[in-house]
Amino acid sequence: MKLYEALAQEIEDMVARQVLRPGERLPSVRQQHARRGASPGTVFQAYYLLEARGVIESRPRSGYYVAPARAPAAAPGVQGGLQPDPEPTRPDGAPRSVDVSGLVFGVLEAARARQVAPFGSAFPSPELFPLPKLARAVAASMRRLDPWSSVADLGAGNGELRRQIALRYQLDGAPVAAAEIVVTNGALEALNLCLQAVARPGDTVLVESPSFYAALQALERLQLKAVEVATDPREGMELGALAAALQRHRPAACWLMTSFQNPLGSLMPAEKKQALVVLLAAHGVPLIEDDVYGELYFGARRPALAKRYDAPGGQGLVLHCSSFSKCLAPGFRVGWAAPGRYAQAVERLKLSTSLAAAMPSQLALADYLGQGGYDRHLRQLRSALKTQQARMLAALAEHFPAGTRVTHPEGGYFLWVVLPDGADTLALHAAALEHGIGIAPGPMFSAKREFRNCLRLNYGHPWTPAHEAAIATLGSLLRC
Amino acid sequence: MKLYEALAQEIEDMVARQVLRPGERLPSVRQQHARRGASPGTVFQAYYLLEARGVIESRPRSGYYVAPARAPAAAPGVQGGLQPDPEPTRPDGAPRSVDVSGLVFGVLEAARARQVAPFGSAFPSPELFPLPKLARAVAASMRRLDPWSSVADLGAGNGELRRQIALRYQLDGAPVAAAEIVVTNGALEALNLCLQAVARPGDTVLVESPSFYAALQALERLQLKAVEVATDPREGMELGALAAALQRHRPAACWLMTSFQNPLGSLMPAEKKQALVVLLAAHGVPLIEDDVYGELYFGARRPALAKRYDAPGGQGLVLHCSSFSKCLAPGFRVGWAAPGRYAQAVERLKLSTSLAAAMPSQLALADYLGQGGYDRHLRQLRSALKTQQARMLAALAEHFPAGTRVTHPEGGYFLWVVLPDGADTLALHAAALEHGIGIAPGPMFSAKREFRNCLRLNYGHPWTPAHEAAIATLGSLLRC
Repeated sequence: MKLYEALAQEIEDMVARQVLRPGERLPSVRQQHARRGASPGTVFQAYYLLEARGVIESRPRSGYYVAPARAPAAAPGVQGGLQPDPEPTRPDGAPRSVDVSGLVFGVLEAARARQVAPFGSAFPSPELFPLPKLARAVAASMRRLDPWSSVADLGAGNGELRRQIALRYQLDGAPVAAAEIVVTNGALEALNLCLQAVARPGDTVLVESPSFYAALQALERLQLKAVEVATDPREGMELGALAAALQRHRPAACWLMTSFQNPLGSLMPAEKKQALVVLLAAHGVPLIEDDVYGELYFGARRPALAKRYDAPGGQGLVLHCSSFSKCLAPGFRVGWAAPGRYAQAVERLKLSTSLAAAMPSQLALADYLGQGGYDRHLRQLRSALKTQQARMLAALAEHFPAGTRVTHPEGGYFLWVVLPDGADTLALHAAALEHGIGIAPGPMFSAKREFRNCLRLNYGHPWTPAHEAAIATLGSLLRC
Repeated sequence: MKLYEALAQEIEDMVARQVLRPGERLPSVRQQHARRGASPGTVFQAYYLLEARGVIESRPRSGYYVAPARAPAAAPGVQGGLQPDPEPTRPDGAPRSVDVSGLVFGVLEAARARQVAPFGSAFPSPELFPLPKLARAVAASMRRLDPWSSVADLGAGNGELRRQIALRYQLDGAPVAAAEIVVTNGALEALNLCLQAVARPGDTVLVESPSFYAALQALERLQLKAVEVATDPREGMELGALAAALQRHRPAACWLMTSFQNPLGSLMPAEKKQALVVLLAAHGVPLIEDDVYGELYFGARRPALAKRYDAPGGQGLVLHCSSFSKCLAPGFRVGWAAPGRYAQAVERLKLSTSLAAAMPSQLALADYLGQGGYDRHLRQLRSALKTQQARMLAALAEHFPAGTRVTHPEGGYFLWVVLPDGADTLALHAAALEHGIGIAPGPMFSAKREFRNCLRLNYGHPWTPAHEAAIATLGSLLRC
């Protein structure tokens, strides 16, 4: 029996003997370490195991408590909206091959084929981006072009852009050397390359439930198996469930969106991210951290990166990926990876799959970032998205059927809507298209095509009366 | 016995009975068709089979002849240089997993780590490209930008650029609909996506011998097996050997560089390209036609595309790939595929691996092509490359050891040098780097790491006295 299993058994016995009583707070990790001499990793693992067994439960920003003898369902959160938050998901946890691409492409192509109210879109409105300023940056940087940069910047990308990205990591408390950064054709390529660096065909990868469909498509293309793990709509993947899945499946990697997950909008609290990194490191499992929405926070400061708890001096197991596509320059296709110990592997994969990211885009973004003004743009963008979210939440509360649950994310531009049982969002999708309205039906976000009564709505577009009317139309379609 | 096998047997019997004598010309495909009623495909296949068996031989631009009883080695060609052309390659034809990336990256990174005479480079000099004019096109197209294009152009790419590319296909006699074209991050991504569209892990793919190392790397990454097929340094892959390999290995695809192959510089004649398409269609095997050097011809007109013999009305089995990286705008990373019947599959792979090519690059190239002037630039570029080739050939004749064979390609910017037996170009590579000289050693171009006495030299840079001296240094390194 391993140390953490022994500790878990000891605590479970204490609970059984009522030495520890339901609702009682467990000693903190720090206390276990200081008094008992147990390493933090051992304590975390013991607590995750107990959480997975239902013996204890975690309370955000508070600690671990003995679970009630028979816990009543937690009251759904009502954070600023009129409809309650959805419950955590409960996937069956079986590994399965993925075959979701046909559905996803069908939905995406239907949405592109006609003018629709773009609630099904994956992007915010391009009108929210500083395109004239970017155009000037493109022109200025091309005039100063060193002809040899097209050769010198092959592979990892332009040096000045990588330096600018490294500066932002430093400000975010996650120092990353410019040399670790690999510039890619958007975050999607970064994520694909990271996945190839850590997993081989047939391997298992843990993902959230529901999960971003492009992650499922990547797993499908690389012949990897997905295990969907229970995910809380507010705080992201449940670590107890994750610990159990790590034991059971010995996965090659975890692919998580730690801040403003697509489609849930969940935000993993900082201490949970830290525990996540500790837990994965204890199992030697790499974390692919998809953080493309991290800059779109509505709170006082940028959410922590899980990467922060890995570097420097960590094991280098966190492969952090992001891009400028969601927050600055959508068509430029500039993303990056900070792949920790896998940096050389990812750079080589980049070289052999597409050689380099486009130079005009890289040079223009390096120029734009060097001028300053990016943070001012981000503040305006966040403010616009927050307002648009409030408008859409209000419209949903007015027009959607009773019993609907909706997430209230603290950033990003997606709402996840859980309709009463029996609702069919694939049918709703088809019917809505007839009215020129796009939605993203729930089954796009599951290897099992679950979540048939769920949908993702994009509030990334300036709110108009037509949008209000479109929500009303969706509501009436749901009632007939 | 199939029709073509029966026809082959019949001819072989006639040769055995001396009805057809050594050196005698066989009836042409047209004659066999007109008189005998055999379909051209049947005749081609019969002749390839006989060629593979050594019963007959093809003579370029002439036809098929009964092989001599015991043929003397053909006199090596001496086309405008002082050194003879190399012999055709004779790989063993066994399928094998590829593991060439370590060597390739080592060589590429060594070359990037210091200032070297860039004979090992994969690119022509960036000074040969119209960068100021491209910079103006970038600036102008960004000023006219439609913000929504970043969404509308996802997947297959910008409509105007695809239209401009389609216009050039039409001029080249290979009409391709703009809707078939998928814009990619350079030709390398196009080739990778096409390969994924037609092959699954474990499948076999036929390639030239020697072959482009990035093709070998792509096979390695996708866990495909490579079969290297005998290739003539002047006229490309030998169709007799190809026919035998098709029978033996039932490959998922063929990946060929039909014009100015890298590294040989071989140019498959038009009628051979046609025969290639007919042969592959008879076996239902897709052809990935890597044509990135096709515009860099020194002759009177652009070499035919194999794609020409497939579209329209063909089976759609030719996936033609090219880019602007070698002939116009290296750092822009704009390539494309015209994937025939696989167009939708390739577009979907593009969407799910990297979403889209960079918009500033696409818009600028659409603008540049629309202005005219591309063909004038190409004429200047071809003229420069032709002059540089002559200078390098002369230097090699002066400084390289007796017994050296060198290709004399009619386009592109690579020479393939075959040194006398016993030469070791991996050792030469290391020694040359000490002198600041890069070369591409032969084993980079083979899954078996053959061609240890061969090297590829890049003449894509304006010739200087330093280059002359570097060739002399290589020659003296070879003699010590």
